[in-house]
Amino acid sequence: MSTLALAFDLGGTELRGALVERSGDVAARVSAPTLAGAGSEAVIGQIIALADRLLKEHPQAKVIGIGMCAPGPLDPKAGIVIGPPTLAGWHNVPLIDILSRQFGLPVRLENDANAAALGEWRFGAGRGAGSLVFVTVSTGIGGGVVADGHIYHGRRGLAAEIGHMTITGEGDRCFCGNVGCFEAVASGTALGRRATRLTKPGDNSLLRRLSNDGDVSARHVVEAARAGDATARELVEAEARWLGIGFTNLLHLYSPDLIVMGGGLANGFDLLAPGIRATVDERAMQAYRDVPIVPAELGDRAGLVGAASLILWEGEPGTALAMVQDEETKAGGLSGAREASHG
Amino acid sequence: MSTLALAFDLGGTELRGALVERSGDVAARVSAPTLAGAGSEAVIGQIIALADRLLKEHPQAKVIGIGMCAPGPLDPKAGIVIGPPTLAGWHNVPLIDILSRQFGLPVRLENDANAAALGEWRFGAGRGAGSLVFVTVSTGIGGGVVADGHIYHGRRGLAAEIGHMTITGEGDRCFCGNVGCFEAVASGTALGRRATRLTKPGDNSLLRRLSNDGDVSARHVVEAARAGDATARELVEAEARWLGIGFTNLLHLYSPDLIVMGGGLANGFDLLAPGIRATVDERAMQAYRDVPIVPAELGDRAGLVGAASLILWEGEPGTALAMVQDEETKAGGLSGAREASHG
Repeated sequence: MSTLALAFDLGGTELRGALVERSGDVAARVSAPTLAGAGSEAVIGQIIALADRLLKEHPQAKVIGIGMCAPGPLDPKAGIVIGPPTLAGWHNVPLIDILSRQFGLPVRLENDANAAALGEWRFGAGRGAGSLVFVTVSTGIGGGVVADGHIYHGRRGLAAEIGHMTITGEGDRCFCGNVGCFEAVASGTALGRRATRLTKPGDNSLLRRLSNDGDVSARHVVEAARAGDATARELVEAEARWLGIGFTNLLHLYSPDLIVMGGGLANGFDLLAPGIRATVDERAMQAYRDVPIVPAELGDRAGLVGAASLILWEGEPGTALAMVQDEETKAGGLSGAREASHG
Repeated sequence: MSTLALAFDLGGTELRGALVERSGDVAARVSAPTLAGAGSEAVIGQIIALADRLLKEHPQAKVIGIGMCAPGPLDPKAGIVIGPPTLAGWHNVPLIDILSRQFGLPVRLENDANAAALGEWRFGAGRGAGSLVFVTVSTGIGGGVVADGHIYHGRRGLAAEIGHMTITGEGDRCFCGNVGCFEAVASGTALGRRATRLTKPGDNSLLRRLSNDGDVSARHVVEAARAGDATARELVEAEARWLGIGFTNLLHLYSPDLIVMGGGLANGFDLLAPGIRATVDERAMQAYRDVPIVPAELGDRAGLVGAASLILWEGEPGTALAMVQDEETKAGGLSGAREASHG
């Protein structure tokens, strides 16, 4: 077995671990329901137990470090989980220190959206792109920006908090307290909420039949739209418009070579894409309109392999990028960026 | 005389040239009204004439290159002015090629907001900051981001088009065709327009007296607010709120160490600051609220000295940044960034 990284993706619901190869291939996977209410010590105990299990089951593995992603806010440089809303009892936990002392290995920490951005850039939908913005649309909206081969961190690693970008003055109040956050109008939660309001238990609508007369979720909307339900199609149309407004802002602000959409709602990407594209074509300035918007390729593996790459590809901006930059220098422009393949 | 750069700031109204020292000091200045309607050849003729004049008047100057800024959209890597709305007859003009052939010197090109961001970072309000977002608020709103010692360019140098970030669904239609652009609600033009609508010629309001019963401008609003006029104070309050909403987005998206506000409306910064701060404190997530928002220091010199620094400091991320990064490594955090002085 070649050189590997131990990788962990700590979510509010599930803790996932893997042994990841330099190619991005996952050699082994484990998982456990996160003891999210039990405080940081219990969860760190889970991480250690899963790591021990992976190492024991793969004694021949040459593990050179641990790459870890967790919900923000967290400080990747300091290695500290500041206090994610989905994990009770975590307050400024020095996770890198704790794990590197436990295992005697280098440990790198990144927030989950940034790790997924890196994973998609190295191994998924963003292979060969010079830069990308990754947007995850599910319960909330998160994002990560890769530019010049590195995550764009900003102060304390807090850049790309795109879910709380104000894009309108209307809609429901966001959990953060504001009105108009991208997340509050365009997340899967927002879509489900609109669908729930538009229907009633017992109204025999397809949406309520799919939800067994409970609250309608984004998944139900996508399923109903796929079946041709008119209400669901309208909801998808409105959702695509909000996503298009937000994506247009991301184009104007970061000017990436590519936008990659992941998260649960990416399951409906094919349905959303025409509306997103129409909105971007209507709202983005001319020079930004030809930027591809594509679905993520790695699904729930993106964070794990992105976190692993922090160990396996540390300090390497990536072959693809070097190629793109060479081509830029030659051609005096970035036109070749999308065509460059990942070396 | 030490090593110098020739610098030019090509605006729609005025063309300014200077000899700039490595310290950022301006050794000599010239200017001319831009022949904005006469096409690119005429304006390039003006640039050459001003350059010749500066070189002739300072025969002892050791000029090592030409740094130039111009309105966007432009491609800084390719050295091409794509087609600024304020300059008639400019369409994909290879300005770097033309000027380097003319003078036999290296030429660098940057859009004006980016150059000003770099100028403020090296020599002005952003000295010592690891990263900053520069926002220029005047007729429109433009911006530039400096991170890790370099301008954040994105694809084709088009990042930080912050004036066309959608922040609301209301207000007048922007010249770009959308409703809700930051520029359309928060520029000096938008403020003047609101003031003009709120008053009438001959109503004896202070705003109309200052404007001689013509359209009220942002400058009149600031002047009247300074004199204690209640209507003007309310207009300033509303303006500060729009700026605060936009600045909060910039904090969430770029997580800079500092926001620097320049442009004509920065003349009213002291009046706007409390409202901007209150809005940011209300809307930004906790971790972003302590980021300083400060007025620009270099006025209309920012673009010139920033453009010059592309020649004089090429490839050097700057002493200050190196210091900050050393301190980060030592302290495991960015807390010392604002205190680091510019070496």
